[in-house]
Amino acid sequence: MIVSDAGADTRTVHVDLGARSYDILVGGGLVARAGQEIAARLPGIRAAIVTDANVAPLHLDRLSAALDEAGIGHVPIVLPAGETTKSFDHLMQLVDALLGARLERGDAVIALGGGVIGDLSGFAAGIVRRGMRFVQLPTSLLAQVDSSVGGKTGINSPRGKNLIGVFHQPALVLADTDILSTLSRREFAAGYAEVVKYGLIDRPDFFEWLEANHAAIFAGGPARVEAVARCCEAKAAVVADDEREDGNRALLNLGHTFGHALESAVRYDPERLVHGEGVAIGMALAHRFSHRLGLIDGQDVTRVERHLQAVGLPTRIDAIPGPALDVDTLMDRIAQDKKVSRGQLTFILTRGIGQSFIAKEVVPDDVRAFLSAETAAAA
Amino acid sequence: MIVSDAGADTRTVHVDLGARSYDILVGGGLVARAGQEIAARLPGIRAAIVTDANVAPLHLDRLSAALDEAGIGHVPIVLPAGETTKSFDHLMQLVDALLGARLERGDAVIALGGGVIGDLSGFAAGIVRRGMRFVQLPTSLLAQVDSSVGGKTGINSPRGKNLIGVFHQPALVLADTDILSTLSRREFAAGYAEVVKYGLIDRPDFFEWLEANHAAIFAGGPARVEAVARCCEAKAAVVADDEREDGNRALLNLGHTFGHALESAVRYDPERLVHGEGVAIGMALAHRFSHRLGLIDGQDVTRVERHLQAVGLPTRIDAIPGPALDVDTLMDRIAQDKKVSRGQLTFILTRGIGQSFIAKEVVPDDVRAFLSAETAAAA
Repeated sequence: MIVSDAGADTRTVHVDLGARSYDILVGGGLVARAGQEIAARLPGIRAAIVTDANVAPLHLDRLSAALDEAGIGHVPIVLPAGETTKSFDHLMQLVDALLGARLERGDAVIALGGGVIGDLSGFAAGIVRRGMRFVQLPTSLLAQVDSSVGGKTGINSPRGKNLIGVFHQPALVLADTDILSTLSRREFAAGYAEVVKYGLIDRPDFFEWLEANHAAIFAGGPARVEAVARCCEAKAAVVADDEREDGNRALLNLGHTFGHALESAVRYDPERLVHGEGVAIGMALAHRFSHRLGLIDGQDVTRVERHLQAVGLPTRIDAIPGPALDVDTLMDRIAQDKKVSRGQLTFILTRGIGQSFIAKEVVPDDVRAFLSAETAAAA
Repeated sequence: MIVSDAGADTRTVHVDLGARSYDILVGGGLVARAGQEIAARLPGIRAAIVTDANVAPLHLDRLSAALDEAGIGHVPIVLPAGETTKSFDHLMQLVDALLGARLERGDAVIALGGGVIGDLSGFAAGIVRRGMRFVQLPTSLLAQVDSSVGGKTGINSPRGKNLIGVFHQPALVLADTDILSTLSRREFAAGYAEVVKYGLIDRPDFFEWLEANHAAIFAGGPARVEAVARCCEAKAAVVADDEREDGNRALLNLGHTFGHALESAVRYDPERLVHGEGVAIGMALAHRFSHRLGLIDGQDVTRVERHLQAVGLPTRIDAIPGPALDVDTLMDRIAQDKKVSRGQLTFILTRGIGQSFIAKEVVPDDVRAFLSAETAAAA
């Protein structure tokens, strides 16, 4: 459904992290150029391409040919698709495959896939021989604008999402916007939730630009390259300022504390809810909760809801198909969330479009009362 | 067999790593003071004490009481003793226990044990919530002078030792030299191999001091505190210079490439060989191999062998009980060692006592011929 933008120019976003600095290239046709871009930066390496059973038939042959052309010896490792692959079992299998391929510390793990493949592969790269090189070739919009940038890697625990992982920065990110043409509309929209997030955090102009240009971004072309590049710039700035989330990086969790609780409550069932949809509902909840606390005008809340709805994203808990979610389950998941600090709940709240802030002393009873009202509305 | 040195003064060694700097305290009675030392540096934390079934009956109650006194809430986690605990299975169990205890990012994992407990607990602390605080209370000489300092953590793979892990610096190390009185002579001697290593790397004066003082170090008292503190200083200097082993930190692997191959070849069976014994044989091999390459005088080799033998450490492959080890197995293990870079073998060789250096282009056939002669001598 999405038109190719192979003709668009490539944009480069630099992530400034001292010795761990790296470039993100954004544009069309980057898979075909991956070999030369990698060889130019990491001469003499060997590599493993880690991908999943959905992505492999679409893109693996082209990437493999590109690496062959540049003389980069490589092995493919194809994992099952889906969130359940972010498990200890698959991590162990992947680590063993990397060791079995006799890859060395200076060699690279190349993640060809969405957030699941990127998070799992980055974690494996971070722990094999205490840290191999890592290259991201994100194939979903969500991975291009969010998970491939910034070095967060990890797997899920039965106790919650992303509770186990490391910070391990990639050496290079290649965001091929042509690849997004293979996504379904639902997948593209889910990634778009993270695009909207950057506007809502602290870029009201970007949010306004999205309100005017969302159709062009979905259609493909220069607007899509522009949107991905601006998101990467926004994330790179936050990450450079606070690599390990000791401070303002937490703003990137806007919508995520609620969103993770929802995902966990539906047991990561993608038929019911994918991550970006959880974030969309989570952002709407964060804005409505902020309104309930008297922090933000109702008009701003409505504007956020309308934009999410305009691209087909859900904004309410009752939009999740299947059995209704109960408040006790959600509160338990929120308490287990890793953004909890010393028993107090931390949320990203907001005073207006692009005016979000870290609220560290949110009272659990206020959250419970708010969610009770939200889920009662759903019943 | 070792006399307590509770009266000795506490020495402080500072490890200078910028934002990740920390202190190592060395002296008697530190378990009893652990609560106050931890609370002074990490106010308000909760903790998990990770230990093993051998160490728990000896020291857990005292540490637990010390934490209670300082108001540090804590849970004990007791794992099986032995090298096989450094596995993916036990890592997964430990990570789940830490998450189950609802410990937060700012809380601490306290490792009470030897190198196995320290390496496994540090790895778990490094990956739970992408990095919790970590405190080391090393209970073996080997852990006090080597593995507890410098942030290397990890587990073993069926493909080799320590192939999976992260760099995760502790926030504090408490090296209670009284605790070493509970070690067997064999365990103490194994740790002493790492003490000797610091002299052989680049401190000929320290080696000479050890030749004169080894009996006093084994007996306990101020000489033992002095020896542990000087080793920690030596290691801290190397680690501060090269945290992630991109350069001279590799010197700390003196004796380890051979040693790891031997440990791997006997499948980490502690009845046959413990780590320090592997290092002792490995250091003797490194010196004899350097002599074979014409790098070092025979007298220096003899001096090293004599000192190791004086404290009861093995210096030859045929000292390992059980079936003879064959050269093919050893060469395969060496090739899989993580110090391999781009197909060339890296060894730490030496030009004399305290004159070791990193040799990056060692020819595999030279190693094979040397090991053939060594194992033929054994047969």
